Amino acid sequence: MNLQDVIELDKRDSLAGKKDEFELPPELIYLDGNSLGALPKTAKTRAREVVEQQWGQGLIRSWNDYQWIDMPVQVGEKIARLIGAAIGQTICCDSVSVNLFKLLACALHSQQGRSLILTDSDNFPADLYIAQNLSKFQAARPCQLRTVARQDIEAELDDSVAVLMLTHVNYKSGLMYDMANITALAHQHGILVIWDLSHSTGAVPLALDDWQVDFAVGCGYKYLNGGPGAPAFIFAAHRHHGNMEQPLQGWMGHKSPFSFSPLYESGSGMLQFLSGTPPVLSMSTLDAALDVFADVQIQNLRQKSLALSSLFLELVVADEVFSELQYQSPENPARRGSQLAFSHPHAFAICQALIARHVIVDYRAPDILRIGFAPLYISFQDVWNSVKHLRQVIVAKSYLQEEYSVMNKVT
Amino acid sequence: MNLQDVIELDKRDSLAGKKDEFELPPELIYLDGNSLGALPKTAKTRAREVVEQQWGQGLIRSWNDYQWIDMPVQVGEKIARLIGAAIGQTICCDSVSVNLFKLLACALHSQQGRSLILTDSDNFPADLYIAQNLSKFQAARPCQLRTVARQDIEAELDDSVAVLMLTHVNYKSGLMYDMANITALAHQHGILVIWDLSHSTGAVPLALDDWQVDFAVGCGYKYLNGGPGAPAFIFAAHRHHGNMEQPLQGWMGHKSPFSFSPLYESGSGMLQFLSGTPPVLSMSTLDAALDVFADVQIQNLRQKSLALSSLFLELVVADEVFSELQYQSPENPARRGSQLAFSHPHAFAICQALIARHVIVDYRAPDILRIGFAPLYISFQDVWNSVKHLRQVIVAKSYLQEEYSVMNKVT
Repeated sequence: MNLQDVIELDKRDSLAGKKDEFELPPELIYLDGNSLGALPKTAKTRAREVVEQQWGQGLIRSWNDYQWIDMPVQVGEKIARLIGAAIGQTICCDSVSVNLFKLLACALHSQQGRSLILTDSDNFPADLYIAQNLSKFQAARPCQLRTVARQDIEAELDDSVAVLMLTHVNYKSGLMYDMANITALAHQHGILVIWDLSHSTGAVPLALDDWQVDFAVGCGYKYLNGGPGAPAFIFAAHRHHGNMEQPLQGWMGHKSPFSFSPLYESGSGMLQFLSGTPPVLSMSTLDAALDVFADVQIQNLRQKSLALSSLFLELVVADEVFSELQYQSPENPARRGSQLAFSHPHAFAICQALIARHVIVDYRAPDILRIGFAPLYISFQDVWNSVKHLRQVIVAKSYLQEEYSVMNKVT
Repeated sequence: MNLQDVIELDKRDSLAGKKDEFELPPELIYLDGNSLGALPKTAKTRAREVVEQQWGQGLIRSWNDYQWIDMPVQVGEKIARLIGAAIGQTICCDSVSVNLFKLLACALHSQQGRSLILTDSDNFPADLYIAQNLSKFQAARPCQLRTVARQDIEAELDDSVAVLMLTHVNYKSGLMYDMANITALAHQHGILVIWDLSHSTGAVPLALDDWQVDFAVGCGYKYLNGGPGAPAFIFAAHRHHGNMEQPLQGWMGHKSPFSFSPLYESGSGMLQFLSGTPPVLSMSTLDAALDVFADVQIQNLRQKSLALSSLFLELVVADEVFSELQYQSPENPARRGSQLAFSHPHAFAICQALIARHVIVDYRAPDILRIGFAPLYISFQDVWNSVKHLRQVIVAKSYLQEEYSVMNKVT
């Protein structure tokens, strides 16, 4: 594979034009879209409109005139298309953590006589925290969290488990569960399954209805490009709608919020998951960002994502300079998400040295260099150039320079 | 009082210049700042900068470079000044509903042996919903909600009550509790008190530390002008920090979020109240909006607010045309917030007829016309003109026109 081949790949890329729909700094190779997606031009325009026109000029009238009130449902349905969910099962609200809390409580509520939450020890720590703190909180109503190694999950599925809580694509390694298979296995034991789709949605094909998924949460600011801290989403399968009781039911989910009735009566379907007033600005940029996906087939995104990561891997494997990097993602492309992970004792400093060269990747403690491939705006030449920079950093041992190795960053 | 007198009031108003710091449509008289505050120019500028520079150009680096990670604390401390709280007791996050849930669970947790939440039946319905749903959820860990008439609250304070949950300024009538007095009475019985400051913060002087308040929540998008659905805040007195356990503890409140440790260990102080990733855009506009208060004394705001509502009342009382409107707010100015309420059988249609005349007020079911006075951007002439329009609507009985009386609005 040489530069000419790579240029050819870009020429044949049917998604190549999508990059123009983003406001990326021209000097940057941004391989961190799995952490914070880039700014779509639609979102930039919408942010100005929402702030200056809808809020500034419309003021309170915009709840009606610009349908702010419908936004959780509207944004939810745009996401539904990306996760393979029929209408009426997806809603946008709050953060992944808050939504996971709602779903855990809801699933436990409907699993009378069972109290065990099963998860793997490699799950995203924030998800573990929510389950841990829910267990503490529910002290009198038994609920325990059991954390086992990833490879032991299947063996632990039995009739004592109430809820299986897993993240589809691991945040560090990119390892992807076989969602259809695990969900079916869990169902054989009457277990409800909650999937965290934060590192999958917008990059990996999902078929929640086909796979009989019960519940899911996901993130708006990674591959969906909704902006920093954009609200998250909840999926709940239709068949559970009659038996959903979540503790954070609030006025936005009341069947008639503006009747100001003193008694809570839940709205129908997914409205039951709404709590307080949504952050309209943050939800609006997500809404606009989702329009970038309107003419995109997820299968094409997936194909390009795998082609990008395969190219990166091929270039790295072919060159012994990179032998000090340990590959930490699955060998089988079908089992990995849209990212690659390598371990290195100086992973943090390598990450900083790359950032100084305008190649944005990220570091995850203790020693992981994580490289994300957002197929909407990453080109094959970006991959080629990022490997070139990585090579220079490794050859020059730039990571030994003090300016790169002092850990003064939070993320 | 004639127009000349009113013009004179504006000339003598030390806050008159503040109106220029907002982007208000020139034709509008906006008497709904108690529902959604107007757009400060600082917030408009900041929104562009956050979207286009910080997100668009800085991307993931902005968590460090623009201190997004510190925003919950930074915004919390700006609010602290407005509520009379010393440093380290106020943090910005989530919605009022979610925050109220956290505080209720937290207060119940520390009130061993008591399980009763007391509130008044006139409390904001959304607050009632959260308490109702928490009670249902905590079925096995006893927790009941007792709702009594406002005038019976004091008599109900006894040693069986765990938590008293009240809203400082009533959302409809504007009636304001004597926070210092009620809090002291509750403390005599060992009751913890949670105040909802949504209709007070930024309009009414608050001295949470002086009044020995335990806990409070409040809203970012009313008098604080943070933008639609701007995040809310939590106050917790220092003396409770050692005994706060709330069920939604998430990774943003971990003592070291980016160590990705599998075990939750809470950060110090108010960090314990953080759950997921904050909506950075929505929180940024609130942050910028709070700078409008930097050179303002709340006592001056309060003085002007009362002068505005008194003028409105004086003009209405003096004119028998308005006799069909029933005054529903306290006579004693010291007991009302920054709003007035009148009942009328056609309140909804009157509200719509006023909006058609560019006088924005709001309606609250079943028959309340609510008029808010945001002293930062409402002038005495605005009040004069709004009464003139109201008079014309009443005299012409415009509210009988079908275009105004069909209830097709959500808010």
